[in-house]
Amino acid sequence: MSKYWSPLVRELKPYVPGEQPKMQRLVKLNTNENPYGPSPRVLEAIREQLDEGLKLYPDPESEHLREVIARYYGVAANQVFVGNGSDEVLAHIFHGLLKQDRPILFPDITYSFYPVYCGLYGVESRPVPLDENFRIRPEDYDQPNGGIIFPNPNAPTGCCLSLKEVERIVGGNPDSVVVVDEAYVDFGGETAVALVDRYPNLLVSQTLSKARSLAGLRVGLAIGHKDLIEALNRVKNSFNSYPLDRLAQAGAAAAFEDDAWFQETRQRVIDERERVTAGLAERGFDVLPSAANFVFCQHREHKGAALAQALREQGIIVRHFDKPRIDNFLRITIGTPEQNNELLIALGTLLQAT
Amino acid sequence: MSKYWSPLVRELKPYVPGEQPKMQRLVKLNTNENPYGPSPRVLEAIREQLDEGLKLYPDPESEHLREVIARYYGVAANQVFVGNGSDEVLAHIFHGLLKQDRPILFPDITYSFYPVYCGLYGVESRPVPLDENFRIRPEDYDQPNGGIIFPNPNAPTGCCLSLKEVERIVGGNPDSVVVVDEAYVDFGGETAVALVDRYPNLLVSQTLSKARSLAGLRVGLAIGHKDLIEALNRVKNSFNSYPLDRLAQAGAAAAFEDDAWFQETRQRVIDERERVTAGLAERGFDVLPSAANFVFCQHREHKGAALAQALREQGIIVRHFDKPRIDNFLRITIGTPEQNNELLIALGTLLQAT
Repeated sequence: MSKYWSPLVRELKPYVPGEQPKMQRLVKLNTNENPYGPSPRVLEAIREQLDEGLKLYPDPESEHLREVIARYYGVAANQVFVGNGSDEVLAHIFHGLLKQDRPILFPDITYSFYPVYCGLYGVESRPVPLDENFRIRPEDYDQPNGGIIFPNPNAPTGCCLSLKEVERIVGGNPDSVVVVDEAYVDFGGETAVALVDRYPNLLVSQTLSKARSLAGLRVGLAIGHKDLIEALNRVKNSFNSYPLDRLAQAGAAAAFEDDAWFQETRQRVIDERERVTAGLAERGFDVLPSAANFVFCQHREHKGAALAQALREQGIIVRHFDKPRIDNFLRITIGTPEQNNELLIALGTLLQAT
Repeated sequence: MSKYWSPLVRELKPYVPGEQPKMQRLVKLNTNENPYGPSPRVLEAIREQLDEGLKLYPDPESEHLREVIARYYGVAANQVFVGNGSDEVLAHIFHGLLKQDRPILFPDITYSFYPVYCGLYGVESRPVPLDENFRIRPEDYDQPNGGIIFPNPNAPTGCCLSLKEVERIVGGNPDSVVVVDEAYVDFGGETAVALVDRYPNLLVSQTLSKARSLAGLRVGLAIGHKDLIEALNRVKNSFNSYPLDRLAQAGAAAAFEDDAWFQETRQRVIDERERVTAGLAERGFDVLPSAANFVFCQHREHKGAALAQALREQGIIVRHFDKPRIDNFLRITIGTPEQNNELLIALGTLLQAT
């Protein structure tokens, strides 16, 4: 604490991201990265851009990238916003669309950055409890609100709403912006982008960090009615004119252009998820049904915190949240088949030994 | 305007960056890029990082980069903050340190993003007029305030305060944070980093977009007392955990490691600035003394707007600000010797023809 801090800073409770350990040779299953890496065409596009040079400012509007994304999803380029990771996109959404006079709604168990944004921008919120199966109940969002945001699939549960259920929430709240945070949608969910032309209050956010395996490049996006996108542009242009550098713009566009790579690698993650889920069940875990690149599970006899610690001692890092309702769960990223085998073998040994 | 916008968005007046035209073969002297490009070691470092892959999140703390910068300036790593361009760094400074109960001070003629940040974060400000020679008078800042920010050299004038004059402002306001925005300092100013260990209220911001010729990579930084840096970290970690991607972290570190390249290229810009200044004076311009990589000048007979338009028709783009006190001026970036010759020849022809 310092006398120079603004009153805001004194009150902030910053987000704590999953650890990015600097040790080598870890089995890192804690931050939901995609183990297969980006398309080789991404690296090629970045190399070409390097040859062009970095001395000039990037296109502040990321026009080419937005056109590529618009074509991919069959929307207009002015319905697409891009930012420096979906975390930046979400921050602008909270500031520009969800900061209203009434409290916003989001699930009690969800992406833990949402309450942090509320603290940063002074947004009031009201948590909506998941049901006893850790699922979002669309009818619970039939209540007065200043906006709604939820991930689909939800984090850290992995549970997914159908497009019909999402539409029930969007259509039931025509006076509020409804944000569907689709960071993990490509591993088994249905995107709500199909609905944006029917619902001017719907905004869909996505990231290139997960299914497109570009966590190291920092690119996220939002798609919705052009008026919602304009609000985000107004905030962005009051914050940082050039949020995406030349390399990120080129690499992200190439990622959308190599659909074969995307389809193949995400399917490999999905197949592995099903195998890991079965393996965990055999070892005494209850695993929530996941449509993401991670599983959320609790052991029927052992505490989550103790298991996370025991795995860590063997060089396997998973994520444990010390929070009400979920403090017995582990969130485990789906890795390569080899990494997943290491996890299952280590758990088998641990659980036999106890 | 849309009913879904937050009250804030309705009021925003976003920043308008200099045009980034997509036409080729322009003489682009409007956004103060450095024509010599980054060190080859920067590109090499980025290529190596590409081989490592982009699937994993970057280091959220940019530890290696901050250590390199700390070593360069002889400060501790916890006195260094980095962000996605100095515009992002400045945004966090306004939000985390300058949003106070009393109005902040900045020059009436200065970087036009400052009032935009004030609008974004609800920061009250009071402009302090430059003197009749367009210079900052340190004694004008001896008045109650919630914080002070000014560029040194100032933009768009290019005029520079001595380190003694900067110290007069910092030392005269021990209860306020004083931010010295040194985007252009390497072209002839003295950095105030030398003062940070004596003044806990001093924060210095810099960019890699100008002297280090990395406008396309988006990296900026701030240096100050560790408590000021902690305030910025708290805001950053409530906004976006990973603002700098893997390529930007690697490239920026390499830029600080190749000092020979930096020294040589900035000297070439300085030499050219002196030649351009003389050439403009010969053609009837009054040129303010510049310590930056641009000059700010007005013709004794011709209007700035008309000259900018006439140059544009010849494929030469300079910046004109349609603002009180400076609407007759042109801000002209120092380009390569060839570009500068094109400018001087075009101006010579234009002014003879009229």
